Amino acid sequence: MASPGSGFWSFGSENGASEPENPNTAKAWCQVAQKFTGGISSKLCALLYGDGEKPMDTGIKEGARPEDKRVACICNKKPCNCQKDQINYSFLYSTDLLPVSNGEMPTLTFLQDVVDILLQYIVKTFDRSTKVIDFHYPNELLQEYNWELSEQPQTLEDILVNCRTTLKYAIKTGHPRYFNQLSTGLDMVGLAADWLTSTANTNMFTYEIAPVFVLLEYVTLKKMREIIGWPGGSGDGIFSPGGAISNLYAMLIARFKMFPEVKEKGMTAIPRLIALTSEHSHFSVKKGAAALGIGTDSVILIKCDERGRMIPSDLERRIIEVKQKGFVPFFVSATAGTTVYGAFDPLIAIADVCKKYKIWMHVDAAWGGGLLMSRKHRWKLNGADRANSVTWNPHKMMGVPLQCSALLVREEGLMQKCNQMHASYLFQQDKHYDLSYDTGDKALQCGRHVDIFKLWLMWRAKGTVGFEAHIDKCLDLAEYLYNRIKNREGFEMVIDGKPQHTNVCFWYVPPNLRNMEDNEERMNRLSKVAPVIKARMMEYGSTMVSYQPLADKVNFFRMVISNPAASHQDIDFLIEEIERLGQDL
Amino acid sequence: MASPGSGFWSFGSENGASEPENPNTAKAWCQVAQKFTGGISSKLCALLYGDGEKPMDTGIKEGARPEDKRVACICNKKPCNCQKDQINYSFLYSTDLLPVSNGEMPTLTFLQDVVDILLQYIVKTFDRSTKVIDFHYPNELLQEYNWELSEQPQTLEDILVNCRTTLKYAIKTGHPRYFNQLSTGLDMVGLAADWLTSTANTNMFTYEIAPVFVLLEYVTLKKMREIIGWPGGSGDGIFSPGGAISNLYAMLIARFKMFPEVKEKGMTAIPRLIALTSEHSHFSVKKGAAALGIGTDSVILIKCDERGRMIPSDLERRIIEVKQKGFVPFFVSATAGTTVYGAFDPLIAIADVCKKYKIWMHVDAAWGGGLLMSRKHRWKLNGADRANSVTWNPHKMMGVPLQCSALLVREEGLMQKCNQMHASYLFQQDKHYDLSYDTGDKALQCGRHVDIFKLWLMWRAKGTVGFEAHIDKCLDLAEYLYNRIKNREGFEMVIDGKPQHTNVCFWYVPPNLRNMEDNEERMNRLSKVAPVIKARMMEYGSTMVSYQPLADKVNFFRMVISNPAASHQDIDFLIEEIERLGQDL
Repeated sequence: MASPGSGFWSFGSENGASEPENPNTAKAWCQVAQKFTGGISSKLCALLYGDGEKPMDTGIKEGARPEDKRVACICNKKPCNCQKDQINYSFLYSTDLLPVSNGEMPTLTFLQDVVDILLQYIVKTFDRSTKVIDFHYPNELLQEYNWELSEQPQTLEDILVNCRTTLKYAIKTGHPRYFNQLSTGLDMVGLAADWLTSTANTNMFTYEIAPVFVLLEYVTLKKMREIIGWPGGSGDGIFSPGGAISNLYAMLIARFKMFPEVKEKGMTAIPRLIALTSEHSHFSVKKGAAALGIGTDSVILIKCDERGRMIPSDLERRIIEVKQKGFVPFFVSATAGTTVYGAFDPLIAIADVCKKYKIWMHVDAAWGGGLLMSRKHRWKLNGADRANSVTWNPHKMMGVPLQCSALLVREEGLMQKCNQMHASYLFQQDKHYDLSYDTGDKALQCGRHVDIFKLWLMWRAKGTVGFEAHIDKCLDLAEYLYNRIKNREGFEMVIDGKPQHTNVCFWYVPPNLRNMEDNEERMNRLSKVAPVIKARMMEYGSTMVSYQPLADKVNFFRMVISNPAASHQDIDFLIEEIERLGQDL
Repeated sequence: MASPGSGFWSFGSENGASEPENPNTAKAWCQVAQKFTGGISSKLCALLYGDGEKPMDTGIKEGARPEDKRVACICNKKPCNCQKDQINYSFLYSTDLLPVSNGEMPTLTFLQDVVDILLQYIVKTFDRSTKVIDFHYPNELLQEYNWELSEQPQTLEDILVNCRTTLKYAIKTGHPRYFNQLSTGLDMVGLAADWLTSTANTNMFTYEIAPVFVLLEYVTLKKMREIIGWPGGSGDGIFSPGGAISNLYAMLIARFKMFPEVKEKGMTAIPRLIALTSEHSHFSVKKGAAALGIGTDSVILIKCDERGRMIPSDLERRIIEVKQKGFVPFFVSATAGTTVYGAFDPLIAIADVCKKYKIWMHVDAAWGGGLLMSRKHRWKLNGADRANSVTWNPHKMMGVPLQCSALLVREEGLMQKCNQMHASYLFQQDKHYDLSYDTGDKALQCGRHVDIFKLWLMWRAKGTVGFEAHIDKCLDLAEYLYNRIKNREGFEMVIDGKPQHTNVCFWYVPPNLRNMEDNEERMNRLSKVAPVIKARMMEYGSTMVSYQPLADKVNFFRMVISNPAASHQDIDFLIEEIERLGQDL
């Protein structure tokens, strides 16, 4: 990080000698960019620290804050047609914007000013000297600002303030030190694509109103099926609102495949069904079973080995057991990348069992699917090509903005048969184009958000090799973390051995607990360590990482790395921050 | 529309005499904006017709096209640190953008250039002289451009081309003459909010990672419940991925309320359930029943009157009938604003029946819910306050960008009990803040897209009175259309009387059919009229409106108006365009 006063940095090579270090913070960059005339740089720099936070020695005068430029306009007319620099938002309302006649000028300036706020947030997001979060308790946040909705409109001035305030309290999910969820990072091309998607503001149900997006979904799903290993990329699929819904789709289709009459006659017309998944699998399998009328008691949790992988012999044993009771095992959900341990179930052995007992094999690769893009790591999903369906969330390991989850199905046409209701007001059979592109009737949803464009555009921008490089880097970082802490004093690994995915699970043991006997009191005290450290992290805003208990294991940290901004220094920072925040516990 | 050469228009009042008409097309606006120095106006104007379409007499030189400014850079360095005007995207890749060190300058210029493309699209969207759609058949579109995904990355130059191409073939869903779906229009504040949402890139499951959005959802759902009429806005709710899922939630919760054991034991442990809804209701009720394991045979369609409203006496008759068979009627879905006719079921009478037989009353007000904001029209939903749950899609009548659908539930805590699975890795019970704000476990989804901010920000910008004005205007326009065509030669109304909602259903009868006897041949020929006119509309790109058959009624047009850009002239245009395109049939 450039220190104040020394961070001046030359573009190009005009003065290479004066580059003690790169200005890889926004503030340092800003100091340099000020030297340029015109264009975006000076404008943005003026904005960059203008939302209330003091700039640190950037030399930017307070007078450059964006509010100032607006008071020049005193026209008080609606619509205000003043030049940009004279637009006074405190006289303008949303009714002065397009589509109102003459609304172009205020619209473009307003949207540009919103974009400036967003660009400012983006630059700060990647700046390690900014906080990951400016944490406030719910009641504080409710009191600090008036969030209420009222009868009367607010001015555009207020709307811009609302935008700044919202971002002020937001979590910087793209921050290099944000590791809290499986979905982290902020990809610039993905973001641009999502902005475009919002602007296109359409719906996936018919080709008629989303021609390009429907084709891109077709192209992308086919590519994903090819990567899974289904011959020629054949099969079916859909982008759904998240992995839980993708898993629910899989269970729904599996049930329909075995008992198509269930669609009309319901569960009372068919035998009792049993779904099987590992004890480390995602809770959405149970949630889906509850929703589909199967019931959570009919979800059997198969034992895992010490690293969180389903034990195929236990799967077979339980299948035999339920069959003996006269129940019908219809669905096995294997997990490729469990939520906590990042474990990969042994898919080939599970596929053998599913084949033997003629059970639908689903692979929940919501988290692990990205590894299919890596020549180095895709072996962990060997056997996924034998699945009947696969959940794969590009919004997790591939860094696509939320939401982007795909369900891939090996048998073509099954989704359509399972879900179609032939709504004649949408899926008219006498349209003038090829109706196979009206894919809406295979969905559970009617309208469906466009989630495809950001994935497609990122794929074009990165190439498959770009995703591979990202994934390999994240796994390398996880291994780096593992190597740094496995023998470090005060750290205890929850599972032995190199991480299979980017999940690294560990306890931090404060000095006071290190020499205690391994008894209940120690466990009790240890269970309180991670929550306190996490709370302190959030109050400092320095970093964020998740923790949880699991079975008989008390609260431990689960580090996951999907963030493209993270580097070795951030891993080091995390380790030291945990030590700093936890040493007194 | 300003005609070329005469459309020069003065800002402010410096030359009021020379304003023969307002420059309400982008092109005319552009001519004027050119006169200003600096700022966004000249920049955007240079871009405005720069994507291949020729400007009409705008005086903009071809040389001002955005491509030209890029060739100045010959640095060929990565990252390219040239000034904006010198950035050469054909040497840059996504790997040159943030979070890469020194990525700020190329990132900001890249995002700004994407925004310029979007702003250009937005201005064109509202320009009546542009096409609603540049229609291409799927095979044409697949051949005209290479959409494939490959191993290797594309340059940022290519990425910008991809953006332009995607928008070139997109439907302008905000165009004043786009009437094709229930969701139309493009609200500028809503769009800005959606851009911000994408930038914040987070997930709704916990307060921890979405503090502001969680609070805004809380505030907004409460306000919506107040408007429904539940005392003090009490109750529960969630924003779900669309009306179909909201309806599915309602059915799921209703089942759980009556038979909580279904969550664990499934449908086989409880009696056969029956859901009842009108024959004009949305297909998602059946879709939901199929998914939930209830089965479509257990959805009874209640008869409607000639205007598409459920007949309460038929509802009661069918309830008695199924009870006599030993089945359990558990769920009545009334519709407030049917998809085709825009009919409002008589909610008070239905509430009485539901109360009498102790059945959950759901109101599917996905389409009609917006009318609750209008003092003039909200009587049509009288009785909605007696419902147990209400689906209300702000992305339809309220013009919020897609997707934005709310399910409101009268009983607090029921959703949570129905859906919770206590995932310990997300909903840790030892967090340092008030856990009631971790609302994720009441959802069927795990991760959940942030759909709240665009609605909240629009509400702040418009006030409740702004939504009311929009809704009243759309209903006035629908009545205008009805009055214009009810006695017009060649038009036949599908249902008599003033529209209840903005749906206006009619046949266009070409001259050749007008004197034919009302027999099968005429019906047969009439059924082909709307599809041909629609196909021609799309090929001309002049307007878009939907059509469908319904029961014994052959294909008719269903006009719906939710578009804030639409005016009387657009309604007149639609009428005349139908006549123009259909007169020879």
